[in-house]
Amino acid sequence: MSEDSFTRYVASFVDELSRAGVKQIVISPGSRSTPLAMLMLEHPDLTSYINIDERSAGFFALGLAKSGKKPVALLCTSGTAAANYYPAIVEAHYSRVPLLILTADRPHELRDVGAPQAINQINMYGNYSKWFVDLSLPESNDDMLRYSRTIAGRAVGISSTNPQGVVHLNFPFREPLIPNLKLQNLWDTHENRKNYLHTTAGITSLREEDIQSIVELFESEQKGIIICGDNQKTSYTEEVLLLSKCLSYPILADPLSQMRGGKHNKNGIIDSYDTLLKYPAIVDTLKPTIVIRFGAMPVSKPLMKMLKNNPDIKQIVVDSSGEYRDPTLNSSHLISYEEELFCKELIKVLPKRNTSSYYEKWVLSQSIHDHTIEESLENITELFEGKVVQALQKALPNQCKLVVGNSMPIRDLDTFFRNTLKDIEFYCNRGANGIDGVISTALGISADQSKPTFLLIGDLSFYHDLNGLLAAKMNKLNLTIILVNNDGGGIFSFLPQSSEEKHFERLYGTPTELDYSKVVDMYGGDFKKINSWEEFQSYFEQTWSNKGLKVLEVQTNRNTRVKVHRELLDHVSQEIRKVLNDEN
Amino acid sequence: MSEDSFTRYVASFVDELSRAGVKQIVISPGSRSTPLAMLMLEHPDLTSYINIDERSAGFFALGLAKSGKKPVALLCTSGTAAANYYPAIVEAHYSRVPLLILTADRPHELRDVGAPQAINQINMYGNYSKWFVDLSLPESNDDMLRYSRTIAGRAVGISSTNPQGVVHLNFPFREPLIPNLKLQNLWDTHENRKNYLHTTAGITSLREEDIQSIVELFESEQKGIIICGDNQKTSYTEEVLLLSKCLSYPILADPLSQMRGGKHNKNGIIDSYDTLLKYPAIVDTLKPTIVIRFGAMPVSKPLMKMLKNNPDIKQIVVDSSGEYRDPTLNSSHLISYEEELFCKELIKVLPKRNTSSYYEKWVLSQSIHDHTIEESLENITELFEGKVVQALQKALPNQCKLVVGNSMPIRDLDTFFRNTLKDIEFYCNRGANGIDGVISTALGISADQSKPTFLLIGDLSFYHDLNGLLAAKMNKLNLTIILVNNDGGGIFSFLPQSSEEKHFERLYGTPTELDYSKVVDMYGGDFKKINSWEEFQSYFEQTWSNKGLKVLEVQTNRNTRVKVHRELLDHVSQEIRKVLNDEN
Repeated sequence: MSEDSFTRYVASFVDELSRAGVKQIVISPGSRSTPLAMLMLEHPDLTSYINIDERSAGFFALGLAKSGKKPVALLCTSGTAAANYYPAIVEAHYSRVPLLILTADRPHELRDVGAPQAINQINMYGNYSKWFVDLSLPESNDDMLRYSRTIAGRAVGISSTNPQGVVHLNFPFREPLIPNLKLQNLWDTHENRKNYLHTTAGITSLREEDIQSIVELFESEQKGIIICGDNQKTSYTEEVLLLSKCLSYPILADPLSQMRGGKHNKNGIIDSYDTLLKYPAIVDTLKPTIVIRFGAMPVSKPLMKMLKNNPDIKQIVVDSSGEYRDPTLNSSHLISYEEELFCKELIKVLPKRNTSSYYEKWVLSQSIHDHTIEESLENITELFEGKVVQALQKALPNQCKLVVGNSMPIRDLDTFFRNTLKDIEFYCNRGANGIDGVISTALGISADQSKPTFLLIGDLSFYHDLNGLLAAKMNKLNLTIILVNNDGGGIFSFLPQSSEEKHFERLYGTPTELDYSKVVDMYGGDFKKINSWEEFQSYFEQTWSNKGLKVLEVQTNRNTRVKVHRELLDHVSQEIRKVLNDEN
Repeated sequence: MSEDSFTRYVASFVDELSRAGVKQIVISPGSRSTPLAMLMLEHPDLTSYINIDERSAGFFALGLAKSGKKPVALLCTSGTAAANYYPAIVEAHYSRVPLLILTADRPHELRDVGAPQAINQINMYGNYSKWFVDLSLPESNDDMLRYSRTIAGRAVGISSTNPQGVVHLNFPFREPLIPNLKLQNLWDTHENRKNYLHTTAGITSLREEDIQSIVELFESEQKGIIICGDNQKTSYTEEVLLLSKCLSYPILADPLSQMRGGKHNKNGIIDSYDTLLKYPAIVDTLKPTIVIRFGAMPVSKPLMKMLKNNPDIKQIVVDSSGEYRDPTLNSSHLISYEEELFCKELIKVLPKRNTSSYYEKWVLSQSIHDHTIEESLENITELFEGKVVQALQKALPNQCKLVVGNSMPIRDLDTFFRNTLKDIEFYCNRGANGIDGVISTALGISADQSKPTFLLIGDLSFYHDLNGLLAAKMNKLNLTIILVNNDGGGIFSFLPQSSEEKHFERLYGTPTELDYSKVVDMYGGDFKKINSWEEFQSYFEQTWSNKGLKVLEVQTNRNTRVKVHRELLDHVSQEIRKVLNDEN
């Protein structure tokens, strides 16, 4: 194989990736991947990021793809490098993020013969890749250049098709590996470009009789709610609001529904259900008879519990991918249809309703909740996790991206982040809810620099992806991290494990006693330990718009927090129950 | 399911793991894995290590199993945690290390329904696990307790059977998850223990006529060599030495063959072939007509090249697993037979030979090589990688374990580490040759504290597994790390990529410019930047026997090193050729 020949084959692939819509590539260093890596750097329309640790690279690409809503390609060399992508691939699969995994491999004659750095890469991500191709060795006749281009086009198409996900392409390369960068016309970007494959996926539609039978479901139901879970598309907020008004059903909006922030009217958007539904007395009043659910099942455990414990509630799940996402096993209708179109179709045919008293009870409960919780948090002087969310919400600029870690931060966000007119994009890896790769995901999200990006994260999750911080330094990215450090696994203090004192600290508390200022310093970041709310506010204001990496550490206490948390919410619920009882 | 019932089921499994020979468990924190985790901590004969980052945990367990030569169990919770084990699993597979992967999972009704932290864990490591079992939900009747015990016994048996490898057991657990630790007789360790499954694997033997035809292969061949590659068993060194003497074939001993160190006679053990065989003129003189090869293909590229370029060399590969490990594709005989027995059988029947002139040429070349290289290194004052190995060899205590990183360190060790009477165990992850997980592997190897442990590692590999350092702090382990820091990917300066100046630093050099003293400080380690050979020696002497983590950083220059390296070896080869020419 001549250099020119494999150069044209690989360049065709790279060029077609770009033409099919890929803009960003995350490359981890290695020798075998040289043909792809060099040609990617050469391509005029691709932006490449170098990320040495492939695990972090995987999550960084996930962040890029989440934020850009376009497939992102990852490239690594042969061997365990490829295995390091696995956590990000699993997350991408479940959160439906389009990723193209490109692994370089030894040629066939060097497989399964004990060659160095050669592992079996065939289908190595199992069911987690929607499509796997072990490509041919490079050849440069017209057929093979077309083959190379079609693989790129198909890969982008398949990864972008609903449900979006992961495609894995494995490239065997023989030595020599250095492409001939002096070749002319490597890129088919001129006017007379050839007509290669474009992929277009159709959208489903519903039959009229199906719409009619759905409409009938709602006719007699006054006590209905709309639940909006994690949703990568922000395009149907307006439609859901119209549907909510039409049916007089309030919207229970998970932070990741993208509905708690933004300029739209927040009337009927309930952000407090996580607290409200903790209390059986309130559930009794607010329990619906029918639910329309969009997006993934929300973060809130009390909400899930209500749905689980009341199988009589009609639960209509609308999911354009047709996938079944209902851990309560109680959903009565699964509608495989575009969420936005579903709302539009219904609005067209539904009769208008007056605001129901049930709806009013939700709104009233929320208003007392918001008032009481705001007041109660004011009185808390200690560094309490719930108040971090409140303080952060106040301090955030009007336009920004907020990335949130799993375990406690996303739960705290759910409980304590109120509706706001600020235009905030919310992100969290809720596909598999891992605490891994969160820093890298946030840096990937920050990379386009369209809006300032903030990350709220716990210390174990911060530790898990410390390596991710290097990307900030090497790619000159800007990120403000609010590190809630309770020195260990704070979530377990809320779980039954906390009663088992004998093994608790060793297995669940897992204090690491790490002074993170040192590692942040190593990565060229700015670190500040926050000792008071005044300090939080003033330091946040001073630094958030600075370039580079900034870490504000809030040290909290996981042992005392459970009590503060429960007392606070108990107080809020009492206030609400008083009013609801007066109402009845 | 009552607590008592699942407690007995899980305890039976844990107890049988222990009875089948597992001594060590590496646990990563999580909720779903609680039944196994708590009962493991309770078991009187199991030692548990906590390791928060599952990727590092995987490699830590790999190190424990490599060093202890027994299966080690890993436990994690559901979700991406399990995906983080993948790199270590791939390495264990190819380096034939017995690992038991225990993953907690959601029960069947919570799978593929969008439940939080639930992913498809069925067969998630594909062909990399020798055996996969999705266990039943816990039940405690006699049949199911026996089932639980047999799975443990079989898992240990299968992972330990040649070729050793990975077994994956997936445990679905329903809530509640807290076992009843007050139950009596959880452990079947008393005298009247029941007679559960013991697994014993037979060993193969060769027919007499097969042995005879092997003997005939050697009869007319005077120019033979024995090649010993990576080998986890140290048990056949004496037998190989006897075979070498019997046939008058020198032994080319990879550092990982465990033959370069130890009290045995080093006559005929060649440690310098990596340099000798770089030079065609020397290859012409030393090229064999027949080769017996044990263990994996050695690290040395020149050796592999000689075998590759000379398909007329008869290459007899002896591998007890029967696996084909020959990237040259030139082996003429694959003998699936225990290496030790192979030697013994041959020694019994082979006629004794006088030392051949071919053998003498190897010994002579080695003696000139050793003398010249020793002298030349003395004259090098700059901090050169090759001299680090020499200085380290001199400074190491008489009994120790030496772990070596992939990429340049293992190659430098191969080239510069001479035969020694010091009793040194050599370790390197040569299954897949990854630069990942090396710190964790070394800490796992150090954990039994039988001998002081040292790690020689490059900076990119050190960076890749920085998280691994936490295990040293949390488990109070002792390790001395020699960090060769050339700020980037030094190996690429030896490869053709180095001629492509335009993209070289970005794609291959990848300088990170990190001051590792800061992160070592965070993990409570002792850090010293070495500026001279005197400093290296004195600091090494002062600190190696101290407790805890110690890092000696030697900053080298990857741009100048290639020249120093090549000039040094060219000089050595000239000296050898002079003498060999005189001989002829």
